[in-house]
Amino acid sequence: MDPLGASPLPPRTASLWAAELGGVLEGPDAELRFACTLESGAPGGVSFIANPSYRRAWAATAASVVLAAHDSPRPKGYQGAILRVANPYAAWAQVLGSGCREVAWSTKRPSGVDPSAVLHPGVQLAEDVIVGPRSQLSPGVVLYPGTVVGADCILHAHVVVGADGFGFVPPQGGQPGWIKIPHLGRVRIGNGVELGAGTCVDRAVVGETLVGDGCKIDNLCQIGHNVRLGMHCVLAGQVGIAGSTVLEDYVVVGGQVGIAGHLRIGRGARIGAQSGVGKSVPAGAEVLGSPAVEAREFRRFFAAQKSARG
Amino acid sequence: MDPLGASPLPPRTASLWAAELGGVLEGPDAELRFACTLESGAPGGVSFIANPSYRRAWAATAASVVLAAHDSPRPKGYQGAILRVANPYAAWAQVLGSGCREVAWSTKRPSGVDPSAVLHPGVQLAEDVIVGPRSQLSPGVVLYPGTVVGADCILHAHVVVGADGFGFVPPQGGQPGWIKIPHLGRVRIGNGVELGAGTCVDRAVVGETLVGDGCKIDNLCQIGHNVRLGMHCVLAGQVGIAGSTVLEDYVVVGGQVGIAGHLRIGRGARIGAQSGVGKSVPAGAEVLGSPAVEAREFRRFFAAQKSARG
Amino acid sequence: MDPLGASPLPPRTASLWAAELGGVLEGPDAELRFACTLESGAPGGVSFIANPSYRRAWAATAASVVLAAHDSPRPKGYQGAILRVANPYAAWAQVLGSGCREVAWSTKRPSGVDPSAVLHPGVQLAEDVIVGPRSQLSPGVVLYPGTVVGADCILHAHVVVGADGFGFVPPQGGQPGWIKIPHLGRVRIGNGVELGAGTCVDRAVVGETLVGDGCKIDNLCQIGHNVRLGMHCVLAGQVGIAGSTVLEDYVVVGGQVGIAGHLRIGRGARIGAQSGVGKSVPAGAEVLGSPAVEAREFRRFFAAQKSARG
Repeated sequence: MDPLGASPLPPRTASLWAAELGGVLEGPDAELRFACTLESGAPGGVSFIANPSYRRAWAATAASVVLAAHDSPRPKGYQGAILRVANPYAAWAQVLGSGCREVAWSTKRPSGVDPSAVLHPGVQLAEDVIVGPRSQLSPGVVLYPGTVVGADCILHAHVVVGADGFGFVPPQGGQPGWIKIPHLGRVRIGNGVELGAGTCVDRAVVGETLVGDGCKIDNLCQIGHNVRLGMHCVLAGQVGIAGSTVLEDYVVVGGQVGIAGHLRIGRGARIGAQSGVGKSVPAGAEVLGSPAVEAREFRRFFAAQKSARG
Repeated sequence: MDPLGASPLPPRTASLWAAELGGVLEGPDAELRFACTLESGAPGGVSFIANPSYRRAWAATAASVVLAAHDSPRPKGYQGAILRVANPYAAWAQVLGSGCREVAWSTKRPSGVDPSAVLHPGVQLAEDVIVGPRSQLSPGVVLYPGTVVGADCILHAHVVVGADGFGFVPPQGGQPGWIKIPHLGRVRIGNGVELGAGTCVDRAVVGETLVGDGCKIDNLCQIGHNVRLGMHCVLAGQVGIAGSTVLEDYVVVGGQVGIAGHLRIGRGARIGAQSGVGKSVPAGAEVLGSPAVEAREFRRFFAAQKSARG
Repeated sequence: MDPLGASPLPPRTASLWAAELGGVLEGPDAELRFACTLESGAPGGVSFIANPSYRRAWAATAASVVLAAHDSPRPKGYQGAILRVANPYAAWAQVLGSGCREVAWSTKRPSGVDPSAVLHPGVQLAEDVIVGPRSQLSPGVVLYPGTVVGADCILHAHVVVGADGFGFVPPQGGQPGWIKIPHLGRVRIGNGVELGAGTCVDRAVVGETLVGDGCKIDNLCQIGHNVRLGMHCVLAGQVGIAGSTVLEDYVVVGGQVGIAGHLRIGRGARIGAQSGVGKSVPAGAEVLGSPAVEAREFRRFFAAQKSARG
């Protein structure tokens, strides 16, 4: 298995990538063997920065090379090389593209499926999936390549695990369309997880999307790429969580909630139904509304409105 | 067929259950042969109470035994036995667990499917489903065990009827995770119903989830366990209805509406798109907003805001 | 192929239809050979008007016959015949019903699928679909009759294209139920489109539902009948767009947004996550909230609330 958060690339030196991307290498050359998030960087890895909120992660990363804009100041503490390009996100797409493989669907039970796991009819599995003991896959479940499902899981009808996440480089320069970010990562579903009918968990760009042990997710939910759910989280129906957001353990999410990307929801937080969460939530907090605010504040506001209307 | 609202259990006396659950039986012993809702209780049946809003139903039930907390006062009028336990909901999960059966998927057209019903390719049916005359099942439709579909229905691609509903006992005592509530019930779809692509209707805990005659439900809707839709209701796309809520006849629900559990929406009520309904709605009312309020009040409020902002 | 926006009917004269519908023909008789929208009307075509906001389109249509209410004044400029009936929408349902055909699913690769297109296992296609070069269809993709998919498209697992849209004549007169509007149209997906897992694009009533070149649509979205998406639009997860709405090029829509029917969203508009769009949006605008307002106004409003709550 790859190091956590990393996805293999055909080995190539940073200086060769600089030439191919029309960029400038600032710092030592190195052979790049995998793509990684900043947080999971390691020697031999290449990552990127396009969103300033990740500067702290950049400072701390152990990746050999980071793709960055020409005017992006080197963060204090970062020892590695910078490959400077006009559009780091577009360059990232190009680097990832070198690691794409064909999707191979299995025609029989893949060897990674435990003998005690139950595959109901109409399941479609990629060849390299892993399914743990006693897990049950209902009709129409689809597991894309690299998906790992733990023990004692229940995946209801039409669950889709591991489809490409939703990431595109905006139109720029001469080209009119959005450029797809290849998804080289995978999805790991822990032990004792239940996924409701029609729920989708997207594959990571690099590394993995994680649904922790004991999570219970209702029908028609959408879990974006590189999301990380801690243990024993509960998500009611039709919840959507955008990319790279982290839920710590025991978070409870009401129906139809939307959570924006790149946030952290603290342990044991509770999010009321239909809330729209646009910023991180501290551990133990209860939030409500769209945009979501602390629940007491929300209730006070609605009480005030009611009295104002007489 | 089981009595309405009841699901069979392997027969066992209330006193044996008391021993197994570490509880105290208060009242006459009886052989328990089925699990039931309070509303549909009958001799031989066991039910439970964990939510005080059901005390009136408890007072009126004809169930032989009700699982209740040690400090829960006996309601006036209730003649049956009480099986007192530390955690009635967890005990309920254990009782229901005794009634679980294996899911058996059919490899050919089940005998309960009317000869005039049309099964398109890629449909997955359990062995004991019933499908009425002239109903059409599109590719990817999945009917779990015990599902009943009436006459002249149209189920579009990837409709899922009868998957487990979403019910879990919260973590408590020594155990860290959520305990699954087994779902022993079924789903009944009336005559002339249309279910849109990807829509899910969950199986009842006990008894049945009901979609009444002539209901029209759009794509990607989520109907929770033990919901009861009256006749000729219309639900636009991506609506979610939480468990045990009742819609009377001719209710019209706009797109992306969420309705909380255990509510009653009166005959002919209209619910505006994206509303979040947190309390019951009277017959004929029109509501809007999240949380939903009477439509006139909602419009007045928004007009006032607008003038305040000048 | 049919003329844009038109769906063939078995030829019949307007006077015969008048007799069958119990209506009155006002103007010259003609043989009606197809059903059409007002906008795409042409000689030989029949359309209808039930919503006064389409009177301008009626005035300009080249359809031979328009179904209209008895008291609906003839618009200035309209030269064709009017077939006056008690309920034009119900009459429209009856006319469309004459054009219905059986759905025929293919048992092998249909001839309209380009040899370079990749069909993964578990795909279900109607016999007359067209799929362009290099497009990839994942497991569980369903393409209903008449669907056209362009080149270089990616359809993820369980995408459903071409199921019936959601249209019903309300209960009226002696009959208690909703009458289904037959859907004779089709769906056209342009080149370079990506559709996320579980996303549904509905078939048009007449003519076509369109997803323009380069559109990127995330998981579990719902695109209603006769919607038209311009080029390079981006829709995040769980978005719903109701019937006949038009998005011009480069519209960007956040997650869980709902857009009502019969609207126009201008080029390059941006719609914030969870917004509910109830009226048309000008080109380049940014809107937020439910109901959605101009983003600056929304933010001012929330800032004012916050200070008022002190």
